[in-house]
Amino acid sequence: MSESHTRELSFIPDWPPGPLDSHRKQSAFDWKQLKLVLEDINSLRLKYKVWKLLESEPLFAKSKTTPSVDEQKKIAAQQMMLIAKLDIVPPEVYAMGYLPRYRFLMSVNEALHAICPSLSVKIAVGVGLFQNALRAMGTEQHSWFYNAAWSREIVTCLAITEVAHGSNTKRIRTTATYDPQNQEFIINTPDFEAAKCWIGNLGKTATTAIVFANLFTPDGQGHGLHGFLVPIRNPLTLQTYPGVLVGDMGEKIGLNAIDNGFVMFTQYRIPRENLLNRTGGVTPEGDYVSVFSEPSKILGAALEGFSAGRLGIMQEATNTLAHSVVIAVRYAAIRKQFGPDKNGPEQPIIEYQLHQWRIFPYLAAACVLKTSVYSLTDLYLKIIEKSQANSNGIDLLSQSVGEIHALVSASKPMYTWTARDAIQEAREACGGHGYLKAANLGELRNNHDACLTYEGDNNVLGQQASNWLLRQWTEGVQSPLVINHCLEWLMCWLMRSIVEDVSLAKQKGACSFEAKNNTQVYKARDLAFIYSEFYAISSFRLSCLKSDVAASVKPVLEQIHRIYGFWVIDRHMVAFYQGSFASGASFAETIRSNLLSSCQTLKSDAVTVADSLAPPDYVLNSVIAKSDGLLYQNLQNEFMTNPGALERAT
Amino acid sequence: MSESHTRELSFIPDWPPGPLDSHRKQSAFDWKQLKLVLEDINSLRLKYKVWKLLESEPLFAKSKTTPSVDEQKKIAAQQMMLIAKLDIVPPEVYAMGYLPRYRFLMSVNEALHAICPSLSVKIAVGVGLFQNALRAMGTEQHSWFYNAAWSREIVTCLAITEVAHGSNTKRIRTTATYDPQNQEFIINTPDFEAAKCWIGNLGKTATTAIVFANLFTPDGQGHGLHGFLVPIRNPLTLQTYPGVLVGDMGEKIGLNAIDNGFVMFTQYRIPRENLLNRTGGVTPEGDYVSVFSEPSKILGAALEGFSAGRLGIMQEATNTLAHSVVIAVRYAAIRKQFGPDKNGPEQPIIEYQLHQWRIFPYLAAACVLKTSVYSLTDLYLKIIEKSQANSNGIDLLSQSVGEIHALVSASKPMYTWTARDAIQEAREACGGHGYLKAANLGELRNNHDACLTYEGDNNVLGQQASNWLLRQWTEGVQSPLVINHCLEWLMCWLMRSIVEDVSLAKQKGACSFEAKNNTQVYKARDLAFIYSEFYAISSFRLSCLKSDVAASVKPVLEQIHRIYGFWVIDRHMVAFYQGSFASGASFAETIRSNLLSSCQTLKSDAVTVADSLAPPDYVLNSVIAKSDGLLYQNLQNEFMTNPGALERAT
Repeated sequence: MSESHTRELSFIPDWPPGPLDSHRKQSAFDWKQLKLVLEDINSLRLKYKVWKLLESEPLFAKSKTTPSVDEQKKIAAQQMMLIAKLDIVPPEVYAMGYLPRYRFLMSVNEALHAICPSLSVKIAVGVGLFQNALRAMGTEQHSWFYNAAWSREIVTCLAITEVAHGSNTKRIRTTATYDPQNQEFIINTPDFEAAKCWIGNLGKTATTAIVFANLFTPDGQGHGLHGFLVPIRNPLTLQTYPGVLVGDMGEKIGLNAIDNGFVMFTQYRIPRENLLNRTGGVTPEGDYVSVFSEPSKILGAALEGFSAGRLGIMQEATNTLAHSVVIAVRYAAIRKQFGPDKNGPEQPIIEYQLHQWRIFPYLAAACVLKTSVYSLTDLYLKIIEKSQANSNGIDLLSQSVGEIHALVSASKPMYTWTARDAIQEAREACGGHGYLKAANLGELRNNHDACLTYEGDNNVLGQQASNWLLRQWTEGVQSPLVINHCLEWLMCWLMRSIVEDVSLAKQKGACSFEAKNNTQVYKARDLAFIYSEFYAISSFRLSCLKSDVAASVKPVLEQIHRIYGFWVIDRHMVAFYQGSFASGASFAETIRSNLLSSCQTLKSDAVTVADSLAPPDYVLNSVIAKSDGLLYQNLQNEFMTNPGALERAT
Repeated sequence: MSESHTRELSFIPDWPPGPLDSHRKQSAFDWKQLKLVLEDINSLRLKYKVWKLLESEPLFAKSKTTPSVDEQKKIAAQQMMLIAKLDIVPPEVYAMGYLPRYRFLMSVNEALHAICPSLSVKIAVGVGLFQNALRAMGTEQHSWFYNAAWSREIVTCLAITEVAHGSNTKRIRTTATYDPQNQEFIINTPDFEAAKCWIGNLGKTATTAIVFANLFTPDGQGHGLHGFLVPIRNPLTLQTYPGVLVGDMGEKIGLNAIDNGFVMFTQYRIPRENLLNRTGGVTPEGDYVSVFSEPSKILGAALEGFSAGRLGIMQEATNTLAHSVVIAVRYAAIRKQFGPDKNGPEQPIIEYQLHQWRIFPYLAAACVLKTSVYSLTDLYLKIIEKSQANSNGIDLLSQSVGEIHALVSASKPMYTWTARDAIQEAREACGGHGYLKAANLGELRNNHDACLTYEGDNNVLGQQASNWLLRQWTEGVQSPLVINHCLEWLMCWLMRSIVEDVSLAKQKGACSFEAKNNTQVYKARDLAFIYSEFYAISSFRLSCLKSDVAASVKPVLEQIHRIYGFWVIDRHMVAFYQGSFASGASFAETIRSNLLSSCQTLKSDAVTVADSLAPPDYVLNSVIAKSDGLLYQNLQNEFMTNPGALERAT
C-alpha cells in the first residue's frame, strides 16, 4: 500500500495480533486496499467516526442478556434523543446538495443499524421517511412539521398498512371526509380490519402520524389515497387525543425496541391544512383540485420516494450478510476438528471443501453486493436529484421510475434472501457456539427477518420486477445490462418462455390475472432474482475495473467474481438444461468444479477478505469471531463474566 | 367415518365453527380419519391427555412476553417437578416391555415438546438420556442413581462435549486417573478448551453428571473414553463441591429455560465404583479388565443407545414442521389480498399458485415424515429390544447397528432441515403478522434451531451416512429400500460417481481423508439426503397401503405422496440431467407441472389436511392460525390484551 494510502486509511484501526495472523499472512494484498474497492472512503470515515463515538457511550453498551421488551423500547427512545444531541448529523448536512446529503444520512443509518437495528428503523421511520413523505407530498404549509421532526419536537410515524391490507394498498379503507362547515377532515376507521397497524414508533411514542386515507369531498366523490398529518398524542404528556384508540402490538420476533403500533380513528377531526396537497388539494368550500390529469399516477411517482427505504434495507442487509460471513470465516479459521491422521494434528474446518462451499459463496456475495448496492444507490439518487432540480420534476420522475423501480424491486428480495441464507449457514457452520447469544448470529437473524416482508413483501416485489421486465420484452427492448453470456441467455429464455406460457394460457381461456399468477413458480420469480443478480455482478465488475483499484487486490477480486458468478449459475442450473443451453454432464460439472476450485483458491485469502468486510469488534459484537482470533480465551471470558453465571440458583 | 371410529376418536375435540368451514367442507374425507393414518392412536390418546392436563395448570400458561432468562429457568425447573407429581408417567410404565415403554415415553416427550421445548429437553437429558447411558454402560452397582434420577432426588446431566471438541469425540481431553491407594479416580480438566460445555441442566441445577473422560491406570496406560458418575453439587443446598468450577453458559438463541453449563475439574476425586463398568473396569489394585477384545468398538455400540435421542429430535422436528405449516395454511385460507378484478372481491392467498408451491410441499412433507418417523422408530426399537433380550446383546447390537445408524444419521439432518425451511417459509408466507411473537413462528424457529447442530452436527451426520452407503456399494450390496425408479437411479448414480471420484483422486495422489472430503459437495451430502427421503417416502407409501386406511382418505394420501415425491425429485433435478437420466426440457417440465397441478388439486383439501396435522389451539399457540379461523378478531383480542398495550409510556 502506498504511503499516502496508509495515511489516508489510518482512521481504520489495525487488527490486534493473534492466531488469525497466520491466515492473514497468506494474502498477497492488504485488507484495507480491498475495503477501499468495496466501500466508499467517505462513507467509511463517517461510519468509523460514529462507531468510535458511540462505543464510549454507556447508553450504547451491549448487554449480555436481552432486556425486557419495555426496557428495550425505553433505551431506544433515549438513544434517539442522544443521537440528536451528539450532533452526528450536523445542521450543515441539510445545506448540502441532494446527493451528498442523502449519502451522508444513509451512511449514518448504516453505522447505526450495525449496532442498533431498532434504533436505525426508529430514526429512518420517524425522521427520514417522514421527511421524505412531506417533501414528496407536502407543500410550504407543512414545513413546521418538517423541522419539528428533525429537532425531535414531535415524534412521527407513517401509517399506510392496515390489519387486513398490506401489499394491496389500493384496498385501504380508512377514510378522510371533508366537512366544509368546519373546514376539517374527518378521519374514520370503519372496523378493526382497517385499523392502521405495524406502524413503527406509533405503539408508545408517536405524536404525529402521516395517515394514508381515501379522500372524500362533500359531494360524496372519492378521490383516492392521500396523506394527512394527524395528531395522535399530546407531545408534552404523551396522552392520546379523544377519538384516537392507539396501542402497542406486543412482542415480535426481533426489533423489539421499536414500538410498532395500531390505531383506530372514530370520526376524528383534523384541520383542512393537514392534507398533504402537493398533488391535489381541497378548497375551503370542498372542491377537489388537482394540477395533474392523473393524480393517482402522480401519487405513485411521489411515493416512489419510498424506494430510498428499500435501498436502505439493501445496505443494511449487505452489512448483515458481511457480518455473518465474517463470523463464520474467522471461526472456521480457528476451530479445528478431525484431520487426515487419526492421531496427528486436527485441521481448521476452513480446510474442508464442504465448509468452503457452504461459506465462501456468501463471502463473495458480500463483496459483490457491497459494490453493487453502492452503484444502484447512485443511480437512484441521481434520478431523484434530476427530478428535484427540474420544475417538471414529477413528470420526469415518472418516466425514469420504471426501470429503477423494477431494479430495486428485484434487488430488495435478492439481497435480503441472500443475507437470510448467509446468517443461517453461518449459524450452523459455527456449531453449538453459534447458538450462543454472544455469537450474535441469533440477533442478526431475528432482526433481519423483518426485512423479508416489510417495505414490500419479497414475493410481491419480485412480481412487480418481472412484470416490468416482461413489458420490456414485449416491447422488444433488451436490457442494456446484459453482458454475461449465460445469464443473458437465461434471462432471455425465461422472458420468452413466460410470454409464451401466458399467451398459451390465455388461448385456453385464462384471464390475464390467472395466466400471470401461474407463471410465477420456476419462471417469473426466478427472472426477477436473476435480473438483480445480474445487475449486482455487472456493477461489481465495473468497480473492479476502476483505475484506482490497487493492482495487488485484482487477483482476489477476480476470485470473488468467479465464485459469485458460478454460484449464481449453479443455483439456476436446471433452467440451462431445460432450455437446452446445456446437455449431458459437462456444463454442470464445469461450473461446479470451477466453483469448488475457486473456493479452494480463495481459502488462503478468506480471513483477509473477511477482514476487509469486518467492522470493528464492538460493532461485530460476536464472541466467536473477534479480530484477535483468541476464540477460546474470549469464550472463557464470556462464560466467566455472564451476570450471575457462577452464582447459586435461587 | 364409521360410528365406532367416531366414538373411538371422541377424545380428539372437534374444531369450532368459523370461516375455515367453507374450506373444510370442500374435502371429501374426515380429518380425523387422515390423522389416524398419520399418527398412532395410542400415542394420540396419550398426547391429548397430557395437553388437557397441562392446559389447566397455571404453571403451563403461555406468557405473552418472554420472561427473563433466569425466570424461564426457574419456571422450567418447577415444571419438571410438577410433571413428576402429576404422574404423567406412572410407575407401571416401567413394568412394560421395552418397546411399549419407550413408545410411551416418546409420546409424552412429543406432547411436552409441543408446548415447552426446553422442558422436554430438560427431562430427556436429565432422565431419559441419563438412564439410557446408565443402562448401556453401567452395572447393578449404579442402580441407586438410576432410581434417584427417576424420583428427581438427583438432577442429572451428561457431559461429553468439550469447548474445543464436539463432533470429534475421540479428541476429548478430560482425564480420569486411578489412584489405587485411595481407590479413587482423579478427574481433571487440563485447560479451558477441555472444559465440558453445552451440558444441559448443568448450568444451575445438576447434582450428578455422567462425565466422559479418558481412563488412565497407575501404570500410565490410557484405556480410552469411559463414563463416570461425578457429583457436582450438594443435592440439598445446590452448593458446588470444591474442585468443581461450574457455571451457566448465558443466553442462547432459544431453549433458554435449559441451563446449559460448563464445568472444569481440578484433581477432583470420586470413588472407584463411580466408573460405569459394563464394558470394562479397574480392579482395586489398578488393573484394567475388559470382557471384550475391542472395548472401544463396544463402547460405540453401547453409545448407539443415544440414537434414541436423534429419533426423539426427528419426532419433535416433525411436529414443528406440522405446526408451522398448519399456521401457514390456515392463515392463507383466511387472508385475502388482490384478485382478478381490480374492483371485485379479493381472493384468499391460498388461491395463488406461487403460494401453494411455497407451502404445500411442506404440508405433504409433514404427512410423509409423520408416518416415516413412526416406522423408523419401530425399526430402531425392535433392534434394541432384540439386543436386550439376548445374553449376547452387545454383539448382536453392533451387527445390526450399521444400517440403522446410517438411516438415523441421514434422516436427522433431512428432518431438521425440512422443518427449518418450513418454519421460515411459513413465517414469510404470513407476512408481517407472522413476525408477531403471538404467531409463534419465531419461537418455533429459535427453539428448533439447536436441533441442526446438536446430537450430531447435521453436516457431520450426513457424512457418516454416506460413508456407510458407499461401503455397501463397494461391497456390492444394493439397499432393499430402493423402490422408486427415479430415486433409485439417483442414489445408484451418486454412489457410482462418488466411488469413481474417490478412486480418481487417489490415483492422483490424494490421501483417503482428502479424497472423501472432496466428494461431499454435490455428491455425498446429497446421497445421504436422498437416502433418507427415499426411506421416508417408502414408509409413507406402506402406511397408505395398510388395510385399515379408510377408503375416503386414499385420494388425498395419493396427492400428498405425489407432491412430496415430485418435490424431492425437483430439488435434485440437476443430477438427473448431469447423469443423462434426462435431457431436454421434458423431464423437468413434466415433474414440475405435475407438482404444480398436484398442488392445485390439494388446494381444496389443504385446510383439512392441516386440521389433521394440527394439535389443539393451546398447543399450536398461534394467534394467526386458530382453528376457529377468526383471524382478525383474534388479532384484535391479542392487541387489546397485551399487557400495558394501551397504557401510557412511562
